[in-house]
Amino acid sequence: MGSSAEQVREVAVKAKAAAAELAPMTRASKDAVLQAMADALVERADEILAANIVDLENGTAAGLSASLLDRLRLSRERVEQMAGGLRDVAALPDPVGEVIRGYTLPNGLEVRQVRVPMGVIGIVYEARPNVTVDAAGLCLKSANAVLLRGSASAYRSNTVLVEVLAAAAEKAGAPTDSIQLVPGTDRESVTHLLHARGLVDLVIPRGGASLIAHVVETATVPVIETGVGNCHIYVDAAADLEMAERIVMNAKVQRPSVCNAAETLLVHREVAAEFLPRVTASLADAGVRIHGDEMTASIVDGPVLPVTDDDWAKEYIDLDLAVGVVDSVDEAIAHIRRWTSGHTEAIISTDARAIRRFVSRMDSAAVMVNASTRFTDGGELGFGAEIGISTQKLHARGPMGLPEMTSTTFVITGDGQTR
Amino acid sequence: MGSSAEQVREVAVKAKAAAAELAPMTRASKDAVLQAMADALVERADEILAANIVDLENGTAAGLSASLLDRLRLSRERVEQMAGGLRDVAALPDPVGEVIRGYTLPNGLEVRQVRVPMGVIGIVYEARPNVTVDAAGLCLKSANAVLLRGSASAYRSNTVLVEVLAAAAEKAGAPTDSIQLVPGTDRESVTHLLHARGLVDLVIPRGGASLIAHVVETATVPVIETGVGNCHIYVDAAADLEMAERIVMNAKVQRPSVCNAAETLLVHREVAAEFLPRVTASLADAGVRIHGDEMTASIVDGPVLPVTDDDWAKEYIDLDLAVGVVDSVDEAIAHIRRWTSGHTEAIISTDARAIRRFVSRMDSAAVMVNASTRFTDGGELGFGAEIGISTQKLHARGPMGLPEMTSTTFVITGDGQTR
Repeated sequence: MGSSAEQVREVAVKAKAAAAELAPMTRASKDAVLQAMADALVERADEILAANIVDLENGTAAGLSASLLDRLRLSRERVEQMAGGLRDVAALPDPVGEVIRGYTLPNGLEVRQVRVPMGVIGIVYEARPNVTVDAAGLCLKSANAVLLRGSASAYRSNTVLVEVLAAAAEKAGAPTDSIQLVPGTDRESVTHLLHARGLVDLVIPRGGASLIAHVVETATVPVIETGVGNCHIYVDAAADLEMAERIVMNAKVQRPSVCNAAETLLVHREVAAEFLPRVTASLADAGVRIHGDEMTASIVDGPVLPVTDDDWAKEYIDLDLAVGVVDSVDEAIAHIRRWTSGHTEAIISTDARAIRRFVSRMDSAAVMVNASTRFTDGGELGFGAEIGISTQKLHARGPMGLPEMTSTTFVITGDGQTR
Repeated sequence: MGSSAEQVREVAVKAKAAAAELAPMTRASKDAVLQAMADALVERADEILAANIVDLENGTAAGLSASLLDRLRLSRERVEQMAGGLRDVAALPDPVGEVIRGYTLPNGLEVRQVRVPMGVIGIVYEARPNVTVDAAGLCLKSANAVLLRGSASAYRSNTVLVEVLAAAAEKAGAPTDSIQLVPGTDRESVTHLLHARGLVDLVIPRGGASLIAHVVETATVPVIETGVGNCHIYVDAAADLEMAERIVMNAKVQRPSVCNAAETLLVHREVAAEFLPRVTASLADAGVRIHGDEMTASIVDGPVLPVTDDDWAKEYIDLDLAVGVVDSVDEAIAHIRRWTSGHTEAIISTDARAIRRFVSRMDSAAVMVNASTRFTDGGELGFGAEIGISTQKLHARGPMGLPEMTSTTFVITGDGQTR
């Protein structure tokens, strides 16, 4: 389903008007709106599930994979989980109004740097309809108007979800048009959104590498890149190898389909002969395919596929692991700087000098010392909620919670000061 | 002078390599480099001034305006001022390594969010050669490699300045290629820089509206918009009119050519008849042309040009002021939200309710209460240095000092934690 630039512009203009009214809302008012949205999801679950069944039938007819259909599928329990997510967001502190810097100048001017909403945030995402609810809740709490652009395969589910959420929000006191769906399901409608300068303050893409690349290359509005994670683990000469094995297994196997799963293992030459046979045996037991360099192949008993530059560069998000042997922490650092997507890297070592060198020379959103890469996650870090994981350096880097969905303004109060 | 994408890419690759070595430099090492750069400017002033004279001669032959030639012109005193600026930057605290958030999770993981350099920063700017020195100093202090792209008219001055700074920096221990000029003087060379994804982490344009628009629309690397300031002053019904006059005069007349000068004055109807005749008389004495609405024209004695939508939208950066009468603070808010460039707005009032309403409904980088718009300035706010004033909401908003030239990373330390 196509949409014109004019149609997308129209919803953006409405969103901008809503944003002006959202900004001064109190926390109590916003939390009441979030509770009403949660109630409405549960009350109108039948309508939501009916729309979801149509999406699922169309998806099946169109030959969507079982895993895509699973991501698309809602149930009464999932609807209740989404409602619970909104109540959790209501319980979080309000980021808006926080004074992050404040001082008085010699001339008596009182300077306050205060968190304020971004304004209008566009979210472009794939399949999962729960993102619709999460994003609407986080934007409402941070007083941003949201423009949601989910995937074509979830269009009916998303349409009903947005209708339910928007109606409940408005009835509970939120400005009209605080929560809207972007019209259209083709790539053009995304492009129109990405070109709405002056109306859209930020677009966050959530999805695969090709979606993110399209957004970043097309946008003239500000964007935050999220989520591609080619994460590395370096096992140092001075590593506790039992700990290293536990961490590698956790980082690769516990949930291989997510961005903070490990994709490459680098092992110091001095411990390779001892460590690689046992860790690869455990990995093989868990169904992991090893893509190794020559040294790895010569050490390991089981099957080792030859590793290529393509493997070093790749985010498998599957049960695959690239494995290499390095001569030093510096060789590990150089390898990681060359191939990383800038998400998360880990060092396993008991050598304080090696740790310090590694940490100070990484160029990624997170560096783990003797811990699993899987901890780069807003929930794990205690943020309470997460809109995505930024792999860019501007504005926010790493997991983004509510404060990262705000901007700031300087409020400067005087009694007639001039220069 | 043209340059190929390949030539620009080559300097960017070198800059990225330098950035990796800059990141772990200590504050003491960086400050020593800055002092050496300052010494070199003074020592080699003759070479710098000789190159500048060639730029000035070419500029005169090409018919550059007197004000452009003035911005381009260096003198021994200006070179010494630039050197002093570098020494001032050396005296500022190091932003790199600052822990901006830190806590321990229930599972024992120690979380630290630490400031780290951006990496490679491109600065695209017009005329003034002092920006070359300022930007090089601020980037060095924040451990960023810099790619400088000044205007064609200052190419010889900038070439010598960069040669002097880079040689001194390297000799004092900075990595080779920490400070480089982007080859080429045509717009294509800017475009190549703006497309160097994966090599350039941030581009900051400093210049007029057309340069900034070109950068924002062309870039696929992250950018920060700076500086266009259509700043408003609203004089409320409850204003101290003597204070209001002082602030309006200061904001319009003290330095009309800068982005934080006032461009529009809105006056509440209740005080218009008393305030407008006296303030416009003072403004006229200072050479300011008044562009007023019908009400203003009917109140004011002196000449009033008719104000158009084009005037409301414009950053005059000259001795011109758009003037309108409004019925309420809400009408002032609506006017400003419609026309502002998002830089600085001011309210003059003694009414706490009007002030609160105005402040909470602005959507700009700074809001002044009973103070001149001219205070939106890194120097005035005590930042010590300023790379520009951001008018966008992402990353940094308002004056940007050294902390705004950094990103952050999460360093998470454990003893074997897994999920």
